[in-house]
Amino acid sequence: MRRSASANMPRYKLTIAYDGTSFHGWQKQHPPGEEPLRTVQGVMEEAIVAVVREPVHLVGASRTDSGVHARGQAAAFDTQNEIPMDRLPRAVNSRLPDDVQVLSAEIVAGDFNPISDAIAKGYRYTIAHSTINGGEMPLFDRHLVAWTVYTLDAARMNEAAQHFVGERDFASFTRKHHGRESTVRTVHECKVEAVDQFRINIDISGGGFLYNMVRIIAGTLLEVGRGKLEPGAIAGIIEARDRASAGPTMPPEGLCLMWVKYPGSAQPA
Amino acid sequence: MRRSASANMPRYKLTIAYDGTSFHGWQKQHPPGEEPLRTVQGVMEEAIVAVVREPVHLVGASRTDSGVHARGQAAAFDTQNEIPMDRLPRAVNSRLPDDVQVLSAEIVAGDFNPISDAIAKGYRYTIAHSTINGGEMPLFDRHLVAWTVYTLDAARMNEAAQHFVGERDFASFTRKHHGRESTVRTVHECKVEAVDQFRINIDISGGGFLYNMVRIIAGTLLEVGRGKLEPGAIAGIIEARDRASAGPTMPPEGLCLMWVKYPGSAQPA
Repeated sequence: MRRSASANMPRYKLTIAYDGTSFHGWQKQHPPGEEPLRTVQGVMEEAIVAVVREPVHLVGASRTDSGVHARGQAAAFDTQNEIPMDRLPRAVNSRLPDDVQVLSAEIVAGDFNPISDAIAKGYRYTIAHSTINGGEMPLFDRHLVAWTVYTLDAARMNEAAQHFVGERDFASFTRKHHGRESTVRTVHECKVEAVDQFRINIDISGGGFLYNMVRIIAGTLLEVGRGKLEPGAIAGIIEARDRASAGPTMPPEGLCLMWVKYPGSAQPA
Repeated sequence: MRRSASANMPRYKLTIAYDGTSFHGWQKQHPPGEEPLRTVQGVMEEAIVAVVREPVHLVGASRTDSGVHARGQAAAFDTQNEIPMDRLPRAVNSRLPDDVQVLSAEIVAGDFNPISDAIAKGYRYTIAHSTINGGEMPLFDRHLVAWTVYTLDAARMNEAAQHFVGERDFASFTRKHHGRESTVRTVHECKVEAVDQFRINIDISGGGFLYNMVRIIAGTLLEVGRGKLEPGAIAGIIEARDRASAGPTMPPEGLCLMWVKYPGSAQPA
């Protein structure tokens, strides 16, 4: 994101939540000869334009995939129109559909970049399980969780999860032709907890994530949770630097971008 | 529901859960010259027919409205095909879309009637509130709750709710031309509780309910919760026997049929 065009042109940072079910992900997409796809960026820009009455370009911290949710996506845009910060969320929300909303807004420095300035991100992956043992298939939250017929052992998964913490080469946990120079990333925390008898949360935070990294980590932890892999096997899977050694890529609906942290901002809860 | 055609023709009782968002209610509807509407009864009968391979008629305990949910609807059908009870839910579920599911199945007496044999029903009405004071509009559960900008006082609502308990004439709490002979019903329990800072549950159970009764009771309790009505005002509203004296009819999405009780069945939790 370029420095804003003039010192008089304020840059706004928004914190955004969305139910990704009916979006083709964050990033605007316009297939040639077809209608533009419905994306969070596209829908958000339309609503902001209706408020500030000039073209805007909204840059998001994370390009979430189709079907992935967010409770704390960060994004920034410039406008010549000065809008009172306390009114901005409500003004934009009144022009948004019911599956996306602005949680808060603030004015940031003219060189703030939501992508490169992010120092950490937190994701949650939720799995519904235990259906054989009396649990039910997810119904009311079926768009918000992944589902497995296996009964998962959260403590075992949490033990395995600790192998991901630290600076690691995550080449086994992204698609083969990822197009990134380096597959080394730092995971700050990876915690697996049972919400109740039928839901498990995987909370993972780190400095940055490769494409599909959280969904492949979730798939690998699932194999530990159902007993197919030992918790200690994770070390070898990381060492292998081979996508084929890790578990399956879990579906998008279980994934949620929880927060994006910037220098000086309060530590997310 | 008529007595089953022969002593050899077993009657099955199903307990069913559904997300009512995309259904035109429980009851089959076929507008002349149009496609049949998507209803729970219609979708369920199709799935059961695919399993038992003969026409079935499924009778539900409660004709839930369009958009209303169920966690414990009861329904019954007859078939000449004997199906093992432990396999029936899974066999039907595998033919159902993802917004409705069979929770359990049992064989019942040939004269069991899911409507007239029901001795009590429990409903829950959920309201999201407090949005002015830092709460957010419902996003991930927006199809499962009603929403109000007012901040509600659950204790005050619970005090008011006690006026509904007992045998009362609920003429103020149904639409004017309801077509029922009597508007006297017995409410066993009516409890209002805060789930957290932003969600309130109204749990109401009773021997029977008039059309829109729970949704109008919820609307009246909302007026108490936001301070527009005193808790003691409920007595007068009941006495008035006039729809105009009660609060608004709340929207369907906040309502859920939790359970239906029959003689001899265990008391629902």
